[in-house]
Amino acid sequence: MTRTESGIRVAVSTVILTLRRHPTPDGRLTVVLPLVRRTREPHEFLWALPGGWLGEDEGLDAAASRTLAETTGLSPSYLEQLYAFGDVDRSPTRVVSIVYWALLRSDEVDAQLAAAVDPPENVLWFDASALPTLAFDHNQIITYALWRLRNKVGYSRVAHGLLPELFTLADLREVNEAILGRRLDPANFRRQVEASGTVIPTDGHRTGSHRPARLYRYNGDVELADPGPLRAAPTIPAN
Amino acid sequence: MTRTESGIRVAVSTVILTLRRHPTPDGRLTVVLPLVRRTREPHEFLWALPGGWLGEDEGLDAAASRTLAETTGLSPSYLEQLYAFGDVDRSPTRVVSIVYWALLRSDEVDAQLAAAVDPPENVLWFDASALPTLAFDHNQIITYALWRLRNKVGYSRVAHGLLPELFTLADLREVNEAILGRRLDPANFRRQVEASGTVIPTDGHRTGSHRPARLYRYNGDVELADPGPLRAAPTIPAN
Repeated sequence: MTRTESGIRVAVSTVILTLRRHPTPDGRLTVVLPLVRRTREPHEFLWALPGGWLGEDEGLDAAASRTLAETTGLSPSYLEQLYAFGDVDRSPTRVVSIVYWALLRSDEVDAQLAAAVDPPENVLWFDASALPTLAFDHNQIITYALWRLRNKVGYSRVAHGLLPELFTLADLREVNEAILGRRLDPANFRRQVEASGTVIPTDGHRTGSHRPARLYRYNGDVELADPGPLRAAPTIPAN
Repeated sequence: MTRTESGIRVAVSTVILTLRRHPTPDGRLTVVLPLVRRTREPHEFLWALPGGWLGEDEGLDAAASRTLAETTGLSPSYLEQLYAFGDVDRSPTRVVSIVYWALLRSDEVDAQLAAAVDPPENVLWFDASALPTLAFDHNQIITYALWRLRNKVGYSRVAHGLLPELFTLADLREVNEAILGRRLDPANFRRQVEASGTVIPTDGHRTGSHRPARLYRYNGDVELADPGPLRAAPTIPAN
């Protein structure tokens, strides 16, 4: 794209967060995300968030979905707007980036990648807690996304975004421990989750080597994501 | 500003919400906000949110503060990013608007307007629940801001943003009733607020024609606003 007269261009980028089990004996869960290796200046060869320029004839949400699919082969059912980054010095040229994010279960990721027509090139999944120096301010953007995940995303939403339909409280605790990067006391965790009403016990149990553990599902009545003005706010009559 | 080659321009707008007492016998509190009458096309003569173009050499936060001060004389200590609006047809030309918002106490508004060098022109304060047809998608933006205020802003933040330092639970309830547009049961409200830990009782009481009412203050330990990546997220070492 040619540098425009006003000198300000609009891009979109997307942070896709999922969990993978570490291939180590302890097999702990780790937050991972896909990054794309840059093939041109600025920051050629550095890793960056999937994204691209906003098209003249597409909305922000559509641009985020399109650029994510083009670069990674992923097509989440819902992308949420995270934040607009517009510092003057965040790029050698002036770029305002509207950043989206989504939480995806690893089985969703696997299914979408298996179904992608062209296998994505130059894409690798990184441990979010051990990133290299990325292009632009993308380290900072990911730090912000992880901070939001830790601070603003409740147990129910994590359950919905990162766990299968039915899960035990131990599953839910393990996911939250991976996100928070610290152990949670099982008894306290159970009390907090049960008091919150954000997950609902089912009649099912998981059996195995331990005593049977009750299966839960997330409470669909609890608002999980910021649905954005065009999805949830009352409709304004056309002017 | 000349239409750029890419055809996409970036603007900032700000939603300033405060409460005023209706000049009617019941004197109920009403959410009000300042709007600016447009003096040129498109939408000449219609009312619009205060705002303007993003400068090539200023960040998003700075542009929001500058355009708000220039158009309304207001300078809140903190503006929070609300959402980026970028639908293709939201303006006759292609404009992405980064929208900020703030809750201001009416006495803060009065003090800032009294201190403003130039009294703002073409500015009026409107009842948020009875707006005319505004320019662009600004009705929709305000509907979204009010939806966020109702759904995402807890009692503590409302107390901090819209009430003086010390307030009674009746004050806090009245403010929340104004925002929600419905009555709240006093006993239930008291229980919920006290259980939330978001406001803290003081030793003070307000005396008057009724029995003394305890004064509360907001709990500064509770996160009030989304502080944005540059304010709260852990600092990333410079690359």
